[in-house]
Amino acid sequence: MSASEAKVLSIGPLPENEAAWIKLSKVTYRDPNGQTRTWESAERRTRPTTSDVDGVGIVALLHTPAGPEIILQKQYRPPIDRISIEVPAGLIDAGETAEQAAVRELREETGYVGVVTETSPIMFNDPGFCNTNLRMIHVSIDPSLPENQNPQPQLEENEFIEVFTAPLATLWDECKKLEAEGYAIDARVGTLAEGVEFAKTLKL
Amino acid sequence: MSASEAKVLSIGPLPENEAAWIKLSKVTYRDPNGQTRTWESAERRTRPTTSDVDGVGIVALLHTPAGPEIILQKQYRPPIDRISIEVPAGLIDAGETAEQAAVRELREETGYVGVVTETSPIMFNDPGFCNTNLRMIHVSIDPSLPENQNPQPQLEENEFIEVFTAPLATLWDECKKLEAEGYAIDARVGTLAEGVEFAKTLKL
Repeated sequence: MSASEAKVLSIGPLPENEAAWIKLSKVTYRDPNGQTRTWESAERRTRPTTSDVDGVGIVALLHTPAGPEIILQKQYRPPIDRISIEVPAGLIDAGETAEQAAVRELREETGYVGVVTETSPIMFNDPGFCNTNLRMIHVSIDPSLPENQNPQPQLEENEFIEVFTAPLATLWDECKKLEAEGYAIDARVGTLAEGVEFAKTLKL
Repeated sequence: MSASEAKVLSIGPLPENEAAWIKLSKVTYRDPNGQTRTWESAERRTRPTTSDVDGVGIVALLHTPAGPEIILQKQYRPPIDRISIEVPAGLIDAGETAEQAAVRELREETGYVGVVTETSPIMFNDPGFCNTNLRMIHVSIDPSLPENQNPQPQLEENEFIEVFTAPLATLWDECKKLEAEGYAIDARVGTLAEGVEFAKTLKL
């Protein structure tokens, strides 16, 4: 198996009655001037009715003597036909809190066991285009604990994820390097790195 | 006019033959094990054929004596039926570079004239769901210049954007405050703030 073998073979229209995961909606709305207009929106079909959030992104930090390392993943993504650099993430199951989903997904996708330290506001991925959103959950991992000595992901048979780490302090340079190597940068990773870089450069 | 008057009136299915801006695609791909699978993807119809990027997000910093302020916008977004807190942004016109689009959109949406200082890698908004992407363009604004004394946005008649600024150093707290006030936080703003906060807290 190699993620670099993955490849789009063909792309075609997806008829409404064949779509199981996503859909297009026509939104009729009143604009700030009181005029009625329409907007086109894309949505997931999977958001639990009990939740206002689709999923979680996990900022999992390994606290090493050299400084914090962020856990990242390489994953082939058919919509972009590229291997994407992402934080661990997942959809929230019905009945689960965002924090429970984060701890579960982190363990399943990376094998690491961590403790939630912060929950972000709900962040909207592209609110002019779609309604998908997530909370970023911060998870602290103590690499000296027995359960983190030999982390073993438990992936489903259609999940192909390669886990790696990068120093948080130099993540912006790492993103540029990874793009130059042909990887796609997920917005959460890129923008987080951008914030770190601004704070360092501008001495905030 | 008031953005808080805007409201979704109804949401219904959007038939393929009525969709002008977005579409669903069925992606047939070979997975890393060599098996053929399908994936459902949402896409914009507007990406210029000459470009591999949909748009730009603009991190525009006003350099004030008290420190850098980031330019933000409040904008009603029908897909989420909320007023969203976003960086200035826009689609790239055919024949335009990302940097040209950033300077143009910043001037149109906020009235400010600035200088491009950095271009990010391409960032993918939600690569398990859609192919939409952007580059983040950093723009530096000198508020002492004559052209920035009384910035006047030039909005189209269906654009309703309120411009404001926030100190970059405390953007994370500002995001939490804005969410508590009922605003939706765009992922670019929230994750950038998160990176700044990590760098400050962890002394990166």
